[in-house]
Amino acid sequence: MTTNYSAQYFINGILQADIAILSRAITLVESTNQINQNLAQEIINGIIFKTGNSFRIGVTGVPGVGKSTFIESFGKEVIANGHKLAVLAIDPSSNKSKGSILGDKTRMEELSTNPNVYIRPSPSSGNLGGVTRVTYETILLCEAAGFDFIIVETVGVGQSEIAVSKVTDFFLLLMLAGAGDELQGIKRGIMEMADALIISKADGDNLNKAKAAKLEYAHAMHHFQKSQSGWIPRTDICSSISNLGIKSVYKMIMEYRQFVLSTDYFLVNRKQQQFELFSSSMEDHLKNYFYSSIFIQKKIKEFHLLNNTDSIQPFLLAKNIVDEFFKNNEIE
Amino acid sequence: MTTNYSAQYFINGILQADIAILSRAITLVESTNQINQNLAQEIINGIIFKTGNSFRIGVTGVPGVGKSTFIESFGKEVIANGHKLAVLAIDPSSNKSKGSILGDKTRMEELSTNPNVYIRPSPSSGNLGGVTRVTYETILLCEAAGFDFIIVETVGVGQSEIAVSKVTDFFLLLMLAGAGDELQGIKRGIMEMADALIISKADGDNLNKAKAAKLEYAHAMHHFQKSQSGWIPRTDICSSISNLGIKSVYKMIMEYRQFVLSTDYFLVNRKQQQFELFSSSMEDHLKNYFYSSIFIQKKIKEFHLLNNTDSIQPFLLAKNIVDEFFKNNEIE
Repeated sequence: MTTNYSAQYFINGILQADIAILSRAITLVESTNQINQNLAQEIINGIIFKTGNSFRIGVTGVPGVGKSTFIESFGKEVIANGHKLAVLAIDPSSNKSKGSILGDKTRMEELSTNPNVYIRPSPSSGNLGGVTRVTYETILLCEAAGFDFIIVETVGVGQSEIAVSKVTDFFLLLMLAGAGDELQGIKRGIMEMADALIISKADGDNLNKAKAAKLEYAHAMHHFQKSQSGWIPRTDICSSISNLGIKSVYKMIMEYRQFVLSTDYFLVNRKQQQFELFSSSMEDHLKNYFYSSIFIQKKIKEFHLLNNTDSIQPFLLAKNIVDEFFKNNEIE
Repeated sequence: MTTNYSAQYFINGILQADIAILSRAITLVESTNQINQNLAQEIINGIIFKTGNSFRIGVTGVPGVGKSTFIESFGKEVIANGHKLAVLAIDPSSNKSKGSILGDKTRMEELSTNPNVYIRPSPSSGNLGGVTRVTYETILLCEAAGFDFIIVETVGVGQSEIAVSKVTDFFLLLMLAGAGDELQGIKRGIMEMADALIISKADGDNLNKAKAAKLEYAHAMHHFQKSQSGWIPRTDICSSISNLGIKSVYKMIMEYRQFVLSTDYFLVNRKQQQFELFSSSMEDHLKNYFYSSIFIQKKIKEFHLLNNTDSIQPFLLAKNIVDEFFKNNEIE
């Protein structure tokens, strides 16, 4: 489905913080239709001068860790401090299971009715490159509409947290105080990306377990390599029921923001992220061209038809095919 | 440096199990000189009909875990069972530190003087694709020279174990019984690749700790996804001093071999590995062409010169550049 509205219509609407128009522009960004894609790029072109001024945080954690209730409590703290908040979700499981992140908006009842909050679940179908692009461009649109605090929520079990880390300034990992096997629930690589590891549901009978888990995680993270920013990742506990720790998470994030602004890492990192988005996107397009080529498709088919597994020279074959692919080529 | 000998000279030498000629052929495989590369490919072409008949295992573990002494003890068991053994090493740290894997051959004193054993340290400089190619083609040359059991040794701290997993039939991870933090020493992704996790140095005061660690690891690995082969990864202890567990590791590997031969996974996996080597090599060459292009280098330079970090559209820019790269192109 395409639209009859012009790019300028969307640009004006977004700059005037018209939420309905913002939502429709995001739908264009998400669309795989080429006409919609072109329109989306035109819209972004028109609003890009008003982007980049938000603080972007990624929130991840396994299902059941309480991401939605955390964001509900934390988000209230964010808007209490005068921000306009956009909550985006990357949900790689949304095709498979229902009731996943943000599927049920009522889980953020108070936030979703607040005029200073915009909540947007994202379908996030497609490959990692596509997910990263949609998330990044959605952030830009939200920023242009005046949202100066962006939360990107994802389930920390797939590759979506890599996408998130490429487009956010701060990475917050929510974890449960488990029974043993503390480090099993989540991939170590994700823990290494975290700027803060927050133990959720630290209330009632669970409070002491959460305190113990905090120490254990702090010990484990101690072994990690220092992050590029120079920031030492923090470990803390919180409860969305008792509101324990919510204010201090906000304070910590502001402290981080101050720190990376003072060291210039904030801008260096943003620039670095843009270059990574640029080059991985180029490589995605490059591979698309390559694998769409009839010649390459034929060669791959031929490879699969080879019977004698022992007499294949995969590296020589690969080199010859790519040489031939570029042979009649005017590229210099 | 190039050679005056013909491909046929090397082919004959390798097929006659001439170790000096084998070694020089491997040096050609490792060379980045294009003339040597071409000669190496010609040699491989001439011996490939005699390859594929070995059993290939990868052995990894952090420095200090006792890989060399394990391979010394285990290798003796392998040749006692009538095999001819080649030990190859991928050592990504060889440029930085001395005394790393196989740097000091005397650490495998008995093996290195046995006529049925060939030990070859590999410089493994360069990128992952290059390391994978050198290792794979070295395996082929050794097989053609009659070695029917190949051990590829690597340090399990970098990406080299990914290269190893792409060219071997069985992946053995050596670990130490540590004090706490059992799962911290090695990336979880590597543990997930292992077909067997062996606790080394299970002797003297360390024996009980090793037994405890075995249980702990077995418990941890229980949570991992089932491997594609259908094989349930094993956990065991061993000592290169008392020889405890060495025979049973060999037995286990033979059991695995029998299992994957019976299920056809052995050949399916080899074919799958070849396809992965083929396609990742194609992508490496593709990227080489791309980034060698003067046009692309200019565009990347331009990107870095952009000042206003806020008005860059990395995805649109990437698409336009790749489109232009292919514009004057006769590829179909």
